[in-house]
Amino acid sequence: MISVYLVGLKVPENVGFVARVMKNFGFEKLYLFDCEVTVKSFKTASHAVDVLRSAKILRKFDEITNYVNMLVGTTGVVTRRCERYIRKPTFSPEELREFLEGKSCEVAIAFGREDYGLFNDELELCHMIVSIPTNPDYPVMNVSHAVAVLLYELSKGKYRVDGEIVKARDVERLIENFEKLMIQTWYPRHRIERTKIALRRILGRSLITKRELSVLHGVVTKALTYIEHLKKQIESK
Amino acid sequence: MISVYLVGLKVPENVGFVARVMKNFGFEKLYLFDCEVTVKSFKTASHAVDVLRSAKILRKFDEITNYVNMLVGTTGVVTRRCERYIRKPTFSPEELREFLEGKSCEVAIAFGREDYGLFNDELELCHMIVSIPTNPDYPVMNVSHAVAVLLYELSKGKYRVDGEIVKARDVERLIENFEKLMIQTWYPRHRIERTKIALRRILGRSLITKRELSVLHGVVTKALTYIEHLKKQIESK
Repeated sequence: MISVYLVGLKVPENVGFVARVMKNFGFEKLYLFDCEVTVKSFKTASHAVDVLRSAKILRKFDEITNYVNMLVGTTGVVTRRCERYIRKPTFSPEELREFLEGKSCEVAIAFGREDYGLFNDELELCHMIVSIPTNPDYPVMNVSHAVAVLLYELSKGKYRVDGEIVKARDVERLIENFEKLMIQTWYPRHRIERTKIALRRILGRSLITKRELSVLHGVVTKALTYIEHLKKQIESK
Repeated sequence: MISVYLVGLKVPENVGFVARVMKNFGFEKLYLFDCEVTVKSFKTASHAVDVLRSAKILRKFDEITNYVNMLVGTTGVVTRRCERYIRKPTFSPEELREFLEGKSCEVAIAFGREDYGLFNDELELCHMIVSIPTNPDYPVMNVSHAVAVLLYELSKGKYRVDGEIVKARDVERLIENFEKLMIQTWYPRHRIERTKIALRRILGRSLITKRELSVLHGVVTKALTYIEHLKKQIESK
């Protein structure tokens, strides 16, 4: 199932327009974090007020990880050099559709603020980054039009759902476990953050099952335990 | 070259939003007929005020036939029984792109009023009808989002232009010539209108050259002349 996650929208009309295009393309589930919703939103929502009314309000950006298997971030900017690893690899809407087709997965597509889009620490939490190919002279789309284009493209696909895939928050626990291992094993400190992002992208994209998650946890935990064991042996000498 | 033709828009913000998505996807030429353009339009156009400023204002709907080879109408409604022949065949955005790709042609995509869309007599003048596949429960999109989706799809294609193709108004002259022939030859009166629409669709889609136009004119005119000749012979008896 594909849902839409709006982050920090300040123009109430935009939230309503998004609800409308969601309904136009047969999507229902809307998550909101830090968005302005007023009577103006209900006006632009037109006959999609039901989508707006049943939207789920989140109190923190990363609360979304409780509800979905995968989080897709959107960006109009694909080439800031210093933070390239956050925005790469970037998928086109078609590539995202092809990726999701036939897979069993609950995915939220996050759209950011009218002026800044998603912040870097939000993009870091995403498992895939998608960008709409636009005119380099004026790439910045209004958020509701970007939603329209993406949902139009995704509406061409066929998807399925089952309960086997772990939630994104479970992937976060696994990444924390990996981080413990990195710290323990003197992994270069300055590379830990981007390695975590890489892990998140890889694990997110591969939509791992509960069994696979527990297998990976087992591997890391086993390594940690053994290191602990060795350290104790050294101390006791 | 692909241009956008807005017809009868009453919400000034929509005209601006359309200019913006046009620029987002690299389209420049905008035609307006009977649209409300105010400072609000320039606000929603954002960095695409140049598109809005250079828009061409038409005084009649069919004036567009002076500027393009082909006119494509858009509709959210595809199944009103009594007027089916106006809205059929309906193409999807992808089919339109595939049709236009590699062809040499100036085409305008017409989008109608927020409430009624394009009127039937306007759709009748179009050579192709395109419709975005939407949720049957709520198919009616905001016009600027419909433009966004269509231009996104069309921006995937490659097109070319040369001056060989006749303008839509020249096709109209040919259809009038055919009508003369129908009237002369006792073609059933009640079928003339829909036959003209069919001719318009066929000739529009096939993007005929100036030479082909004159060949077809020749055929019809020759037939008319010969009928005239026969009638005179009969009279003189």
